[in-house]
Amino acid sequence: MFSKGGKMGILYQQNYRVPFYESDTFKQMKISSLLAVALQISGEQSEALGRSDVWVAENYNNFWAVIEYELNIQRLPRFDEAIIIETEAISYNKFFCYRNFWFKNQEGKTLVKITSTWVLMNRENRKIERVADEIVAPYESEKISKIIRPHKFKKAASFEEAEAVVYPVRFSDLDMNGHVNNAKYYDWASDMVDFDFRKTHQPKQIFIKYNHEILYGTDIHAQMEFESNVSHHNLNDDSAQIEISWEKVSENQQ
Amino acid sequence: MFSKGGKMGILYQQNYRVPFYESDTFKQMKISSLLAVALQISGEQSEALGRSDVWVAENYNNFWAVIEYELNIQRLPRFDEAIIIETEAISYNKFFCYRNFWFKNQEGKTLVKITSTWVLMNRENRKIERVADEIVAPYESEKISKIIRPHKFKKAASFEEAEAVVYPVRFSDLDMNGHVNNAKYYDWASDMVDFDFRKTHQPKQIFIKYNHEILYGTDIHAQMEFESNVSHHNLNDDSAQIEISWEKVSENQQ
Repeated sequence: MFSKGGKMGILYQQNYRVPFYESDTFKQMKISSLLAVALQISGEQSEALGRSDVWVAENYNNFWAVIEYELNIQRLPRFDEAIIIETEAISYNKFFCYRNFWFKNQEGKTLVKITSTWVLMNRENRKIERVADEIVAPYESEKISKIIRPHKFKKAASFEEAEAVVYPVRFSDLDMNGHVNNAKYYDWASDMVDFDFRKTHQPKQIFIKYNHEILYGTDIHAQMEFESNVSHHNLNDDSAQIEISWEKVSENQQ
Repeated sequence: MFSKGGKMGILYQQNYRVPFYESDTFKQMKISSLLAVALQISGEQSEALGRSDVWVAENYNNFWAVIEYELNIQRLPRFDEAIIIETEAISYNKFFCYRNFWFKNQEGKTLVKITSTWVLMNRENRKIERVADEIVAPYESEKISKIIRPHKFKKAASFEEAEAVVYPVRFSDLDMNGHVNNAKYYDWASDMVDFDFRKTHQPKQIFIKYNHEILYGTDIHAQMEFESNVSHHNLNDDSAQIEISWEKVSENQQ
């Protein structure tokens, strides 16, 4: 469904009901599923606007890659909850495209807002390409000159007393692009956080940065360090960086 | 959507399109996703017939558990393919309920058929209960006296030169029931199969048996042994047993 409001890009909207297998042990939508579904819905908008992945590959030999996410979580959608997911390609500059997602309840209240940064990559040399106007024109997003400043993560070199886990990359971690699926990284990071802590704390804000793709046959060396209620995560020497701000859950939220 | 054909139970039908995040590196629907979606759709039928999990819990203090699957695969649904999923509670006896699933293409051809065996468990003592007629009546499945003979798996004790992998159970492996999600077991088993072999072979028939639930904090000790083109898998001393018959893929299928 399309609509064009006062905002810049074209808004694309989908109704969604959280299935059992996308719900975690606390009966809330998994954050990795949230990211996967968001990606799926932006793909649907692109197809509806005549800019499918196939079109982008055939006409420009490019493919889309998300390089950064920021999630702000009011509360997570719950199992079987009927929600509305909206997405909009907000703006773009020479190299970066900015897209937002809103997960809303039936009353239109935003439960989760995601901002994301995308690049177009060359399918052969896998390098970032300039954003061609023709690719992004149908989304009606604003062309800007400004580059939005990325989040500053704790670098691998500054992890001091990190906990470490090694995850072998498995077949089931891969997606159609032949590399580890984007959504997996969050699971690897958050699976290191103590279960009892997770019973009483919810992610409030999450930053994810993808710097290098990870292929089958690699081992993931994941590090984690807590600073008060923020967990810093680093995978394979800055290949991916994740930062999660945890908030104590009040009784009535659980 | 409901319909009542010549067959015994009430048929429940859903249109489905295979999303990106349920597609594997070969652009085919993941088998773990296939099982997860099947479960979801049987849950939807139950809800539509007034026999939701909540109803079963509140009125009988029971919950449903799948104890066995058999999958027969003509070909797997492909990424973005529009398919039709049908399910029907076929029959039941004193302790077991039998339900089928069909994944069909747009021409109505069955791509994957799943037969499954279910039990009702007591929520407190987690023991199998007798099937109450009132619970299953709305599905209009046939009451039978016969117990369908379960598949005979290679037992843990008869694994001789097995390959072994240890998988720690992670938070992201759990579902709302607080234990490892059913669909995970297949990933653990099949992730042990050589990648190059998987490039040229497809699962043709799969048997899965769940004997004991696995909780957080446990390690999964997975064993695998090949006998010609059949891989036998055993998790935690017969807690789960999986058998996969692999078929060489012809050029035009890939």
